[in-house]
Amino acid sequence: MKNVILASTSSLFGEAYLAYLKSEVETLFQGVSELIFVPYARPGGISHDEYTEKVAGFFEAIGIRVKGLHDFEAPAEALRNAEAVFTGGGNTFLLVKQLHEQDLMDVLKQVVSQGRPYLGTSAGSNIGGVNMQNTNDMPIVYPPAFSTMGLIPFNLNAHYLDPDPNSKHNGETRETRIKEFHVLNQIPVLGLREGSWIRIKGDLITTEGQFSSRVFLPGQQPYEIEPGTVCEFSLI
Amino acid sequence: MKNVILASTSSLFGEAYLAYLKSEVETLFQGVSELIFVPYARPGGISHDEYTEKVAGFFEAIGIRVKGLHDFEAPAEALRNAEAVFTGGGNTFLLVKQLHEQDLMDVLKQVVSQGRPYLGTSAGSNIGGVNMQNTNDMPIVYPPAFSTMGLIPFNLNAHYLDPDPNSKHNGETRETRIKEFHVLNQIPVLGLREGSWIRIKGDLITTEGQFSSRVFLPGQQPYEIEPGTVCEFSLI
Repeated sequence: MKNVILASTSSLFGEAYLAYLKSEVETLFQGVSELIFVPYARPGGISHDEYTEKVAGFFEAIGIRVKGLHDFEAPAEALRNAEAVFTGGGNTFLLVKQLHEQDLMDVLKQVVSQGRPYLGTSAGSNIGGVNMQNTNDMPIVYPPAFSTMGLIPFNLNAHYLDPDPNSKHNGETRETRIKEFHVLNQIPVLGLREGSWIRIKGDLITTEGQFSSRVFLPGQQPYEIEPGTVCEFSLI
Repeated sequence: MKNVILASTSSLFGEAYLAYLKSEVETLFQGVSELIFVPYARPGGISHDEYTEKVAGFFEAIGIRVKGLHDFEAPAEALRNAEAVFTGGGNTFLLVKQLHEQDLMDVLKQVVSQGRPYLGTSAGSNIGGVNMQNTNDMPIVYPPAFSTMGLIPFNLNAHYLDPDPNSKHNGETRETRIKEFHVLNQIPVLGLREGSWIRIKGDLITTEGQFSSRVFLPGQQPYEIEPGTVCEFSLI
């Protein structure tokens, strides 16, 4: 059965990397001694090695060794043999391009669907949705497709931000962007605020964390769901 | 010779559509009695007809008729015969997808390069760059390519926003996103604040408007250029 966390962000403001998720991650990865880290999203452009090292620092403290997927000559095999997988945040376009070009998206989907524990943060959570079309990231590379793992039957908008009532900026709000998406697409979208996450246990999908999440369905007014809510969005 | 305005935004906060650009637009379109409007970016998902009507309202007041490109059975021919062209803002992915799928991107480039006056705002300005890879928009559709007209030898980041020093949000700043772009790309990027625009007259490219603009070159610290500066960015 699936055993997954898809978190809006890796870190809360002013806190250490993954600190707010520590006990959840310990539960998710109970019994795991080594995990494969997918560093392809490269936040701020850091190298795969640097990123893996940063992540290893966190997991060392909870007794889990980390190996970077980029270090394997046969990454598909490495994923198939992994005890657990963590995909970190950064640029979703870059992450999705790498996974598709190396034919790893489907492998990862299979492995996670078969029950290997999976943690995603930010871009690593976006790829748990049906496709990456609700990312906030800049299209710094051109992926061969926008499709992702579809561990959940909807899309995520990580780092969801409410409109700022005092803003004098004319760029679109997050809500407007998702509304534009729904003029052309039928896939539900969940706006996950920083500090919230999706928990998947088998077929049960719930929202968790500090804040309510915002549900966007085509042709409907968006609405809030509280932490602990089962995600069963019905289309109109 | 080229005669182009690429504006960061169509409107300033609290002002009417295109109001801040009115005298510039009158100069750009001097002698023009009818222009073709490209409504494909559909801001907020409004229809091509609604968008064209909104734009026609502005141009009527300065004596210019507006025809929507979507109303032509032969849009390439319509562009070739146009006195002038205006591409409005909205979603850049949607705009670029439509232009490529209808083989109109190259036609538009030719027409504008041959001297037909062109106005772009926001998404309509992004397509004046080398490619659309510095848009802020959400990838609500998958375009067959990210390449755009290349009227200028660099990319634009429209609606450029400075980092908010008081933000407790962990999503990437605009500057971080552009830095990530430059880890993988060599194309210079100009951050155009709302109220600023690019003016092209023949081979002369300048920034204009209320604010300084921010220049991003790969491997270099970003820097500001004042309105009136000639844009000749050199790569390292």
